[in-house]
Amino acid sequence: MNQYTHGGDIEGFAQELSCEVNEIIDLSSNINFIKPQINVDFNELDISAYPSYKKLYESISSHYKVEVTQCELYNGGSSAIFSLFRHLNLKHCTLYSPAYLEYKKAANLFGYKISHINRLNIIEQIVEENSFVIFVNPSTPDGQLYDINVLMQYWISRNCTILVDESFLDFTNGESMVKYLKEYDKLYILKSMTKFYSSAGIRMGTLLSNENNITALKKNEPMWKLSHFDSIYLQEALKDKTFKSISKSINAKNSIFLEKILNDSELFSKIYESNANFILAKLTNLTAAQLQEKLLPFKILIRDCSNFDFLDGSYVRIAVKSEKNLIQLQLALVSIS
Amino acid sequence: MNQYTHGGDIEGFAQELSCEVNEIIDLSSNINFIKPQINVDFNELDISAYPSYKKLYESISSHYKVEVTQCELYNGGSSAIFSLFRHLNLKHCTLYSPAYLEYKKAANLFGYKISHINRLNIIEQIVEENSFVIFVNPSTPDGQLYDINVLMQYWISRNCTILVDESFLDFTNGESMVKYLKEYDKLYILKSMTKFYSSAGIRMGTLLSNENNITALKKNEPMWKLSHFDSIYLQEALKDKTFKSISKSINAKNSIFLEKILNDSELFSKIYESNANFILAKLTNLTAAQLQEKLLPFKILIRDCSNFDFLDGSYVRIAVKSEKNLIQLQLALVSIS
Repeated sequence: MNQYTHGGDIEGFAQELSCEVNEIIDLSSNINFIKPQINVDFNELDISAYPSYKKLYESISSHYKVEVTQCELYNGGSSAIFSLFRHLNLKHCTLYSPAYLEYKKAANLFGYKISHINRLNIIEQIVEENSFVIFVNPSTPDGQLYDINVLMQYWISRNCTILVDESFLDFTNGESMVKYLKEYDKLYILKSMTKFYSSAGIRMGTLLSNENNITALKKNEPMWKLSHFDSIYLQEALKDKTFKSISKSINAKNSIFLEKILNDSELFSKIYESNANFILAKLTNLTAAQLQEKLLPFKILIRDCSNFDFLDGSYVRIAVKSEKNLIQLQLALVSIS
Repeated sequence: MNQYTHGGDIEGFAQELSCEVNEIIDLSSNINFIKPQINVDFNELDISAYPSYKKLYESISSHYKVEVTQCELYNGGSSAIFSLFRHLNLKHCTLYSPAYLEYKKAANLFGYKISHINRLNIIEQIVEENSFVIFVNPSTPDGQLYDINVLMQYWISRNCTILVDESFLDFTNGESMVKYLKEYDKLYILKSMTKFYSSAGIRMGTLLSNENNITALKKNEPMWKLSHFDSIYLQEALKDKTFKSISKSINAKNSIFLEKILNDSELFSKIYESNANFILAKLTNLTAAQLQEKLLPFKILIRDCSNFDFLDGSYVRIAVKSEKNLIQLQLALVSIS
């Protein structure tokens, strides 16, 4: 069988099981299982005209408490990452790893020399001067939320260009590094948006930086690239004022339940503490691929973490989903052990 | 007032007129006014999962009679153009001008030296060896359909990399240059799709080339970039088997009507023959900006062509729209003259 090492390939998984996509319990992708209230009829949208992004930019910049001129929107977080690596065109990057895999891919593609810092080990390590530092907070695939204020000062002292990926920050009570935009001019912040707003199918990710950096980034971009459907979805999602708190509290509650399920199972030797909507766990005897295989009859898909740096085939990532889905996982794990 | 030199800025235009966007008669943007039949409920789409593009690629490649491995999809024609110029990284390009303005923008951005060939004058001109040749067929902003078979042979003899932009070819009976993909390995064909399928709000454009070129292009791309909404819209649009012929015949009929309106008006000294859904016309005395101003009370927006190479402030482009809209233009022109 194929290994499901990317997360979210439910079509391939359903095909292998000869079942419908909606029968799959997808615990492999870290998309918020709570959805925002959307009060718009998508069938009535006029998509014939060229889209104007004015209101979209206003709504996103106001949401993140920055100026419109401090944002550039991309077709998802990955597009933003690729564009930024390409644009900066630096020599060296420092990845606090394990991290979202597109960072390594982009760094390799654009010829950066990569230094990995194993943040699961000792986080305080020397960073090369002028390096492009990438820090995902809370991090993937473990969901740990770091206080990075001290690190920020250190990176600044090393004259680094900094990208803080806050794509999962909305799930936490952590503070954004937006506050540093005024004082440091080589700082970028990524908000992938599609995770928290439960919309990997729409492609929208935002880079925040100071006005000069954003103006320079915009020069590389065509006049239109964002779907009007996606734009309206996100504007509507941001209007749902109770979504953030409801979403945070239900995910936190279900995360505790998932942690308990994993702790109760004898399959795992270590459960990582997470502040995001997924949990990293180390298997005692099974490999991730073996556990995936055993979960097949239950139509449950989890993430094999063997392709992350500093992890191996004994690590799996399991997403926080509905109580019902988690109970299905619980029953499956009990019958497997 | 602002000049409307890009086409399609109906929001800005409506704001200036203090009226609703849907009151504007937009003859500035060359989007098909006929829409395909879409049999899907967009409110029911699951956009939480990561999109799979398999069916979309199958549907598009089959539509253009190429293999799946011969297409790469981008977030609209402009995104495709920017990506291709960046990827090819050549020294020189030859633009058969006037042409879609994003070509010049991309060429400048990525440091290409540009030679313009004034195709409104003499089309047979010497092309620099190894140049990146861009030919839009039918062309913008005039809509002329060329037989480029002889030119193709010439470009090939000059070892050029070739991009034929066939974004408006579906409006015509012209033949696609897809037939050359087998015999020449430095050929790319662009199908912007959003023009003919009346969907500038969805962002989808396709580059066709041989498998090796497409594989190389794909390496620069993130795993996800296309909206699931857009993907479903286009798959549905391509299922409408009568759309192409109906759309072509109604546009052809209305194009003749528009040509008559312009010919009957004394404002124009030359009307260009067009095979696409827009007509280029040269004003006798007025400037394009002055005509735009005079059309303001009628809430009619047309395209000022002064920013196209080899054209000036006396040229306007007017889009083929519904008979009702064209009659409104006719009445306006009569009362202006």
